[in-house]
Amino acid sequence: MEQAAEPAGEEIAMEEMERRIQAEGNVRAGNILKVDSFLNHQIDWQLLDHVGQELYRLYRDAGVTRIVTIEASGIAIACMAARYFNVPVVFAKKAKSRNLDGDLYVSKVKSFTYGREYDVTLSKKFLSAADTVLLVDDFLADGMAMNGLLDICAQAGAKVAGCGICIEKGFQPGGARLRSQGVRVESLAIIESMDETTGAVTFRAQ
Amino acid sequence: MEQAAEPAGEEIAMEEMERRIQAEGNVRAGNILKVDSFLNHQIDWQLLDHVGQELYRLYRDAGVTRIVTIEASGIAIACMAARYFNVPVVFAKKAKSRNLDGDLYVSKVKSFTYGREYDVTLSKKFLSAADTVLLVDDFLADGMAMNGLLDICAQAGAKVAGCGICIEKGFQPGGARLRSQGVRVESLAIIESMDETTGAVTFRAQ
Repeated sequence: MEQAAEPAGEEIAMEEMERRIQAEGNVRAGNILKVDSFLNHQIDWQLLDHVGQELYRLYRDAGVTRIVTIEASGIAIACMAARYFNVPVVFAKKAKSRNLDGDLYVSKVKSFTYGREYDVTLSKKFLSAADTVLLVDDFLADGMAMNGLLDICAQAGAKVAGCGICIEKGFQPGGARLRSQGVRVESLAIIESMDETTGAVTFRAQ
Repeated sequence: MEQAAEPAGEEIAMEEMERRIQAEGNVRAGNILKVDSFLNHQIDWQLLDHVGQELYRLYRDAGVTRIVTIEASGIAIACMAARYFNVPVVFAKKAKSRNLDGDLYVSKVKSFTYGREYDVTLSKKFLSAADTVLLVDDFLADGMAMNGLLDICAQAGAKVAGCGICIEKGFQPGGARLRSQGVRVESLAIIESMDETTGAVTFRAQ
């Protein structure tokens, strides 16, 4: 058996995430921040490895047994973190395919990005009341996808250690609502404001 | 900067993949092999780390500059392999979202699993004639998704080092057709036949 990865030391991922957003992020109309050069189209494995290390530093004592995310971008983050936690990843799916069993947890999610509702599904085989879950995703904005994952964890009776987010849009309500519900949310970068005309991005001090 | 991962040594991933398929795979009607406990719903990061190591052993001298896959399951494999190659991952997307630029390579793919056609898209920013690409995916069956990725590489003028596949369904035409076209295809497990009534899976000797 392979040993789980050992974190290299300091928490460098937060500073690094902000730096990459400033250097490569693109602010677009409709509160869209494009970070497709390193996070959700092209993927910088080293950055995500640092994210995985940082999430492990934050949640290492939380008894995490599974890292749960939603396809597609979250899978990369979840896998890089899983090396440090040495636990399986389970990714929820966005539509029912005929390859999936009927025995599913299902939650309905409204996507602002895609302007439609979809079902999030996760096989009952892979999540139970014995689990403590770290939920990860690339973005947290309105928090609709995260709500779906929390709903699925509740259906499973699984404990939620918290959320690990690469980029939180602090000016949208998802993060505040989750924290007010008592959910631990750790975001590597929290955007306080962004301006599509100047391209300026301001981060919340953490 | 983090060092790229170093492969531990022997090629253990082929034997391991066959063993996991035998132990956990489920043969279903319609040539479906369910391996959702370790490959494409729940993900065993250690298995995929071994897959990444083996792909690096096979393609380490091919001058790979990018690992390209298609969402969603391929992302996990691509990320674990990227650590060894120390190159970025680019994952093609299955539908045009309004978060994507207009400047895209597009190829049409017919999915047998989902029974419909979809567009595969990849931003022109992330693939060019300067690239040598390793294409990875979880399954190779009829090869339609891989055709789409090859078409996108051709549009970009990128060189293709070859394909790295976790499970090839040898009784479906994709692998044979790609090899007859001169594409290098390396599959960790090639299924010669499978029987939905007995659940038996037979592998091709490699």
